[in-house]
Amino acid sequence: MAGSRLWLSLLLAAAFAGPATALWPWPQYIQTSDWHYTISPHSFQFKYHVRSAAQSGCSVLDEAFQRYRDLLFGSESWQRAALTGEQQTLEKQSLVILVVTPGCEQLPSLESVENYTLTINNEQCFLLSETVWGALRGLETFSQLVWRSPEGTDAMAYNKFNVFHWHLVDDPSFPYESFAFPELTRKGSYNPATHIYTAQDVKEVIEYARLRGIRVLAEFDTPGHTLSWGQGVSGLLTPCYSGSQPSGTFGPVNPILNSTYEFMNTFFLEVSSVFPDFYLHLGGDEVDFACWKSNPDVQAFMKKKGFGNDFKQLESFYIQTLLDIVSAYGKGYVVWQEVFDNKVKVRPDTIIQVWREEVPVSYMKELALITEAGFRALLSAPWYLNRISYGPDWEDFYRVDPLSFEGSPEQKALVIGGEACMWGEYVDSTNLVPRLWPRAGAVAERLWSNKVVTDPDFAFKRLAHFRCELLRNREVLPKVPGCPCIRIIWSACPGCRFLPTLGPTPSENLWRRGVQAQPLSVGYCEQEFEQI
Amino acid sequence: MAGSRLWLSLLLAAAFAGPATALWPWPQYIQTSDWHYTISPHSFQFKYHVRSAAQSGCSVLDEAFQRYRDLLFGSESWQRAALTGEQQTLEKQSLVILVVTPGCEQLPSLESVENYTLTINNEQCFLLSETVWGALRGLETFSQLVWRSPEGTDAMAYNKFNVFHWHLVDDPSFPYESFAFPELTRKGSYNPATHIYTAQDVKEVIEYARLRGIRVLAEFDTPGHTLSWGQGVSGLLTPCYSGSQPSGTFGPVNPILNSTYEFMNTFFLEVSSVFPDFYLHLGGDEVDFACWKSNPDVQAFMKKKGFGNDFKQLESFYIQTLLDIVSAYGKGYVVWQEVFDNKVKVRPDTIIQVWREEVPVSYMKELALITEAGFRALLSAPWYLNRISYGPDWEDFYRVDPLSFEGSPEQKALVIGGEACMWGEYVDSTNLVPRLWPRAGAVAERLWSNKVVTDPDFAFKRLAHFRCELLRNREVLPKVPGCPCIRIIWSACPGCRFLPTLGPTPSENLWRRGVQAQPLSVGYCEQEFEQI
Repeated sequence: MAGSRLWLSLLLAAAFAGPATALWPWPQYIQTSDWHYTISPHSFQFKYHVRSAAQSGCSVLDEAFQRYRDLLFGSESWQRAALTGEQQTLEKQSLVILVVTPGCEQLPSLESVENYTLTINNEQCFLLSETVWGALRGLETFSQLVWRSPEGTDAMAYNKFNVFHWHLVDDPSFPYESFAFPELTRKGSYNPATHIYTAQDVKEVIEYARLRGIRVLAEFDTPGHTLSWGQGVSGLLTPCYSGSQPSGTFGPVNPILNSTYEFMNTFFLEVSSVFPDFYLHLGGDEVDFACWKSNPDVQAFMKKKGFGNDFKQLESFYIQTLLDIVSAYGKGYVVWQEVFDNKVKVRPDTIIQVWREEVPVSYMKELALITEAGFRALLSAPWYLNRISYGPDWEDFYRVDPLSFEGSPEQKALVIGGEACMWGEYVDSTNLVPRLWPRAGAVAERLWSNKVVTDPDFAFKRLAHFRCELLRNREVLPKVPGCPCIRIIWSACPGCRFLPTLGPTPSENLWRRGVQAQPLSVGYCEQEFEQI
Repeated sequence: MAGSRLWLSLLLAAAFAGPATALWPWPQYIQTSDWHYTISPHSFQFKYHVRSAAQSGCSVLDEAFQRYRDLLFGSESWQRAALTGEQQTLEKQSLVILVVTPGCEQLPSLESVENYTLTINNEQCFLLSETVWGALRGLETFSQLVWRSPEGTDAMAYNKFNVFHWHLVDDPSFPYESFAFPELTRKGSYNPATHIYTAQDVKEVIEYARLRGIRVLAEFDTPGHTLSWGQGVSGLLTPCYSGSQPSGTFGPVNPILNSTYEFMNTFFLEVSSVFPDFYLHLGGDEVDFACWKSNPDVQAFMKKKGFGNDFKQLESFYIQTLLDIVSAYGKGYVVWQEVFDNKVKVRPDTIIQVWREEVPVSYMKELALITEAGFRALLSAPWYLNRISYGPDWEDFYRVDPLSFEGSPEQKALVIGGEACMWGEYVDSTNLVPRLWPRAGAVAERLWSNKVVTDPDFAFKRLAHFRCELLRNREVLPKVPGCPCIRIIWSACPGCRFLPTLGPTPSENLWRRGVQAQPLSVGYCEQEFEQI
């Protein structure tokens, strides 16, 4: 296949032989030799090729060079490999980077081309990529090839996850601090002093992600899952009725009022400027019609519009209006599958996210239906990391073949990615990290690697290595052969790879029934099913 | 009921009213008032009553006074309660302890009486108990009644767990460092330099537990689950055969050789002196007969002994011999339920631990059968904390009523306790703590509290408070209303309650298929079903 959306493919022409088993996810193509090369902290450099379109001054690569330099040589604990086989010192002691596409892109996008070719042999140590984002992926691979390299990068970048899907608000709490509507957090968050995302927090997350080639996809889910919005914006939610009287409870966003759309207009204008990614996630899942049905004003509106008793038409009315608002701000959007299932009329460029495993149909069938209708699809249904079970469930995640539904090659080309997600009902900082990693890595490899890479034993070895990297902390542990990392608890591990700091999580009460999801998504490599 | 085995019953006559909701497990009897009392770090003292059988010099209580003093006043962050209602300063500013039983017991035992009565009113602040162990439980309750009291005790003591069942060795690793057979760890542990329990580690665990009134029940499981033993003791395991040839693999302990029993004799002599508790856990679970069946020498032995093809008789032969050895060292013993299921002839004082939920019969039926046969039973089947599932499964643990099997009062009196267990297949230090707590607390309350204490909402409030205590760290967190503890990761939390340090855990490779279980058990309060 060809075209600008060819991304995430990997090509690695030659590599250090021994530690290639440390690679995760496994490259699309790899050729190894028995040669080992030694690089020295005193002379090794990352260099721009003289003909590279990106040169010194391109912040994404300049900062990555520094980060990976620290990663390779930064601590005294860096050790020379116990080399076997023939050994050479790399003549020029540098990794030369050549980026083809002119300009230094500031932000990764859905269309970013992330493939690269890394060549290490007697003649050269060379990284070729279309874009700076591909160069980032190649640098990560290079760092994984160097024996005992890693300390201090983060687990998403290691796995080449390239989208952080940030489900910012939900029923129990509204932690996103809005300029335009400060009452939303003041009245709708667990605690406006401590449990919110400030503007500064949001900026830091976006910048941290950007430098690692990770897009931030913000989700503001409506019209359902909005109970917390109602605290700060009176009249936004539908008053539910019990018989002829308001019951005192509230349902989804009220779709019959002009004031609702005025609010959404202003709110999404702000959101569109705060989050630079072209895409926003607009939610649309699990809209409960019961409250709308109970409300006489809604009933009258339905009659006036000629919707009969079909509340899906009312939902459609709301969502279409919202999509028009967001489109007017120059944004694209992702919605949950119910929007498609309920036959809401959406624009053809809508991306549909498939999250339900079996209802109303299996997720494979759902992918077939969505792509048959010509929409792009994103898959998360089989990869809910929060739905824990006993035993090594990473193998279940790993076994999924997302393109095994019945459909034409054109349909399969519409599956643009997958997502490993972690919803917050029973998760907070006490258990988030061990629940995310290394299991999320199984999804990353499924999405990045060739579909023939399915051997669980081969995967287990490398995944165990990745886990070991995550846990390594030589300050605490004696140096012993093998992985010396078992006894370390994450936060006591200053030298560990770490997650991006997300600022205060709005997780009061999360333990029982919570709010904050921080799903991670990864773009999908279309090419992986076509090369072999 | 009466007699010296009346233990774990609670009696709390009057208490600070407001914070009584912080109590966990809920006392058997409690009477509260609206009065609040203020205690001051400058004048408050723990005092022995002049007629107390235990006096200054009794290390368990002397050290507990210091520990709880630190707990109540130790940090600058101790705050005066925001008091409501009437308020008094305790006239004598002391908690007076009266222990009835003469002598200062050094070690808790199965027979230890742990009930107590704590009285706080205008006249007195008085703790009455039969033994020093009951006084420890009362001190814990006192500390939970003081507003914002706790920092720096450990989670087992908080929940009044009174036995630490230490499953020290299993198939993959033999980490217990034996004086008599040093090859066992040298050859049979994951790593003899780092992943073992030294003699010093074992001593520290026992002493740490003792001072908190926690018994250490050591398990050395035979004849199955012994693969790791075979590395260091040649000839100990049964060689398996494939047809007429040894296959090169090994099965359970070889029960037909004198050398086996000579080894066990020496090994258990050591174990009996290292672990001071009267009881040892001798295992006996999941003995696979296939290897024994394949071995011609075993077949010949079976013939000689007249066992026919009944390998349960061979198992019985092994276990009876082992029990005789251990009995000769003056020890009592616990075994897993298979020993009973396989009709192994054991001594009448054997304690049978029920761990299988449904096989061969439901655990309730199993309890009925065991107690009908006159044996004492210990229940862990419904409380495998390691078998995680999605959602708040603590409610399932909480709902169990361990005495709801059909049987006479005499049978029910034979159920001596229950155990919350955490097996190590998929657990190590990265996830142990959040997987143990606060869920283990649900088991503790089921075992300590009255059977009418079953309201999950009331339990949830107090369990959430307990979780908050576990997470509190004022150095890191701003002081905000409510539980200010959500963002803290355990190990970063110096002021937190912490678990006993168990020395290096033999957990290399635990993530996939592991070894080390650290079940916790709690004695069972027989009285709780008889008082009301």
